[in-house]
Formats: sequence, structure tokens, C-alpha cells
Amino acid sequence: MTPAKAAIEASFAKQGLMRSFKAGIEEIASGRVVLSMPISPAIGQQHGVAHAGASFALGDSASGYAALTLMEPGAEVMTVEMKINLIAPAAGRRLIATGEVVKPGRRLMITRCTVQAEAEDGILRDVALLQGTMIPV
Amino acid sequence: MTPAKAAIEASFAKQGLMRSFKAGIEEIASGRVVLSMPISPAIGQQHGVAHAGASFALGDSASGYAALTLMEPGAEVMTVEMKINLIAPAAGRRLIATGEVVKPGRRLMITRCTVQAEAEDGILRDVALLQGTMIPV
Amino acid sequence: MTPAKAAIEASFAKQGLMRSFKAGIEEIASGRVVLSMPISPAIGQQHGVAHAGASFALGDSASGYAALTLMEPGAEVMTVEMKINLIAPAAGRRLIATGEVVKPGRRLMITRCTVQAEAEDGILRDVALLQGTMIPV
Amino acid sequence: MTPAKAAIEASFAKQGLMRSFKAGIEEIASGRVVLSMPISPAIGQQHGVAHAGASFALGDSASGYAALTLMEPGAEVMTVEMKINLIAPAAGRRLIATGEVVKPGRRLMITRCTVQAEAEDGILRDVALLQGTMIPV
Repeated sequence: MTPAKAAIEASFAKQGLMRSFKAGIEEIASGRVVLSMPISPAIGQQHGVAHAGASFALGDSASGYAALTLMEPGAEVMTVEMKINLIAPAAGRRLIATGEVVKPGRRLMITRCTVQAEAEDGILRDVALLQGTMIPV
Repeated sequence: MTPAKAAIEASFAKQGLMRSFKAGIEEIASGRVVLSMPISPAIGQQHGVAHAGASFALGDSASGYAALTLMEPGAEVMTVEMKINLIAPAAGRRLIATGEVVKPGRRLMITRCTVQAEAEDGILRDVALLQGTMIPV
Repeated sequence: MTPAKAAIEASFAKQGLMRSFKAGIEEIASGRVVLSMPISPAIGQQHGVAHAGASFALGDSASGYAALTLMEPGAEVMTVEMKINLIAPAAGRRLIATGEVVKPGRRLMITRCTVQAEAEDGILRDVALLQGTMIPV
Repeated sequence: MTPAKAAIEASFAKQGLMRSFKAGIEEIASGRVVLSMPISPAIGQQHGVAHAGASFALGDSASGYAALTLMEPGAEVMTVEMKINLIAPAAGRRLIATGEVVKPGRRLMITRCTVQAEAEDGILRDVALLQGTMIPV
């Protein structure tokens, strides 16, 4: 395991919200991190599909860790701002967030993330698109 | 209780994520809704303060219900998009989100929300600012 | 020329700001429009490179027309909201904006746009990334 | 004239785009700058009202200079990102942008801006709301 991978796994394990959401790491690559979590009534909105806040949280963590893969060892990452467009109801069994750095920088990193919902039959559907800014702290 | 108030309370009670977060309604007024929830390790990020996703979720719900107060009876509301700027660590005992409609419209409503963290001594500090678009469905 | 192409060219010709900017259409495809304009002191900010407002304007028009290619004949398009991340100084001889629909919809369309600056030697550099929402009117 | 005021007026005078737009400074206060510009066909979109790019450009400059009033002498300011919600057609004789710092910081400043259109009869109408991040450079 690379140091970046180990640092991300250690940091992720400390995120209480990700633990509450039963979220897990699917993939860690240079400038790219994929996270997933089950869709359940515990993260629902009033119509039973996942709350925008759940898609946001998973997408924000995936984006932050994608940025962290490109930062100096020992760095930590913080979200400056994040924009989310909700594009379809987050129905199904699982949310999958793919965060990527689209513009690395020493002071700031720009990230994008696609959040998908996996239906019971395995079909993936884009449910949210995020674009934001990460800063090393 | 006005019909709008009753509709919002019924809808809020169905949001599984708000229930998981132990969130509650503080105030419902025309074009303005205030929600709160406790800060606990269960909603933390890696440094123990509340995850951006928790501030976002509470702010998004407050914004949506603020919009709902100005919609036709029977309408439901959906978030089109939401931008969040994180401005301070969300430390303390409670998050408080004040959502307001800044531009009502028949097709679209623009909302703003301030999320504050209440410290153990009761001092409030702004932690996030949201600006977004709601649509009746 | 397809009807969509003709409609976009006619609409573009009516945009006074695009004319003031000496902007032109590079490409019209289904769900994708590319515009360009010269970089000159007339659109500069205080350091001489193109003002963020110029990158935004070109990117916004490219995004709107990309959405228009997928709307009903006779429709017109309006920007609901747009987020721009500025990622590098817009220096060089030309700005090129590539707008694309990432999520078509009957009521709303989500677009993304990359604005590039073309240096004197022809090298392209990404200078801004936009993500926004278009609505038919 | 205070040093901050002088610095902003000097910087503003160098913005070619603001000059092309015939924009002027209405007010400079601590954490707050108001700019204005005439609405004319030269900044129009296809329906004759001001292009979103014009509202954005004026609002972005007002936001940046509002941030500059709170930065160290000699500092310059750059937009990291900016979100705009368009809320009404920008018709009339003048655009007025009021930029304000909502969260000052040493590394980053969060700004908000309201852009208004002044009708022929002097009535003001909000046409756009911006929220963004400025950085000293």
C-alpha cells in the first residue's frame, strides 16, 4: 500500500459520518477516489430516495480524498466550496461517488465528482454532479 | 397550525436522514425555516467537527422547506442545485440552519441559508453559507 | 444547415455582447457548441489577461446554445444559474469555450463548459470550468 | 482618499473590460464596493436585455474589490470561483452591483453580491445574486 493510500484509509476510518453511512472505499488512484454506501431509509428524504445531503456527503468525501492523493505527504484537505446539481432521484441499493481532480494546484485543487445510484438490477444512473475547490491545511 | 406548517412537519417527519441526524424544526415562517441538530461523533469528519455533508444536508432541508412555505398547497419541493461555502469548522454542540427564500417564483425559487454552530457556551458562529435553486414537483 | 443550427446562428447574431466581444461560432453539434473570441485589452482585467467576466460570458453562451440544440424547435433558452471555477490566467490570443449538455431534461438541462486560452504559439490551456442549469422559455 | 480607496481606483482604471462597459465606481467602504454600468445593446443577449455575462462581470469586479478593501496594502485579489443565480431579466438603463465580504479570512474571503437593474423610472429590481471566493495574490 502506498503512503497516500494508507493516509486516505486512516483518514476515512476517522470520518464518523462515513461510518454512520456504512460507506466504503472502492478505489484510490492518483487524482481519483471512488466511494460507495448503501441506500436505506436511514438516509432518505420524504419520498424514500436518498437525501441530497447523502449524495453531497459521499461526493464531497470522494472529492476531498481525490485531492489528497495529489497533496504533499502529511497534508490534510478541507473543502472550500462545493456546488452540486441534482439530476435524478437517488433510488436503488447503492450510491457510488467518483471524485476526480480536474485541476491540481499547490494552493487550491479543483475537483469534479459524479454520484451514481445503482439499481437493484445493477444498472447505474447518474444522480448528481459536483464541482468544487479543495485546499491543503 | 397553518396548512403549510402542517405539510412541512409531515414531510420533515418522513425524511429518514433528518431522523438519523436527530434534527428538529425550530421555526417555520413565510419564506423562512430554521432547523437544528446535535453535533456528535456520528456526523463527524476526520478531525471530529461536523462533516460538510451534515451542514449541507441540514441547510438543504431548511432551504427546501423555506421554499415550500411559499408554494401552492399540495406542492412538493426538490433541490435543483445548491452551492455551499464552508467558512469555519463546525465545532460545538449543535448545528442551526436558517433557510430563506430570496427570490420566489412560480417555476423556480432561489434560496439562501446560513448554517451556524452553537458552542458549548451558547455562542453562535457561522460555518457555512448556501445558495441554491428549488423547484416545485 | 439543420433548423437547430440556423436557430442558434440567428440567436447568436442577436447577442450584442458576443458581437462586442467579436465572438464567433466554431462548432454546433447535438448537445455541444464551441465558441471563440479574441483576447484583447478591451476585455482585460487589471493585469492584462482576460477578465473572468469574459470567460464567463463566452462559457455561458456556449452552454446555453449547447442546451438549445436539444430543445424543441422554437424554444429559447435562459440560464438559471452558473458556477465558474477560474483555474489559470486567461492569457494569449483567443478564448475558446466548449459547452456540453451533461444531463438533458424536459424542464431543466445541466451543462458543463471548459474555457481554454490559446497562446500565441497555438498551445491550449484550460482557464475556467463552468457547471450550470438551463431552462427553456 | 484612503490608501485602499486609491488602490482600488487605480486597479479599476486598469480593467479594460470595465472600461469597455463604461462601468464606474459608486461607493467604496470597508468590505463593500458598489459599481454601476449602463445597459445598452452592446452588452445585450438575444432578447435585448443585458447578457448574464455583463451582470456576472460587474458583480465579480464588485466582489473582488470588496475583498480587496480588507486585504493587506499592496495585495491583489483573484477570483477562485463564483456562482451566479439569474433571477430576472436585466432590463432598464443601468446595472448596479453591490459586492460585500460575508466572511473575511487571511487565506480566503467569501463574498456575496446583488446585481440590480435600474429601470427608466429609477425603480431598482434584483436581477442576479452571486456568491464566491476571493484569494489574495
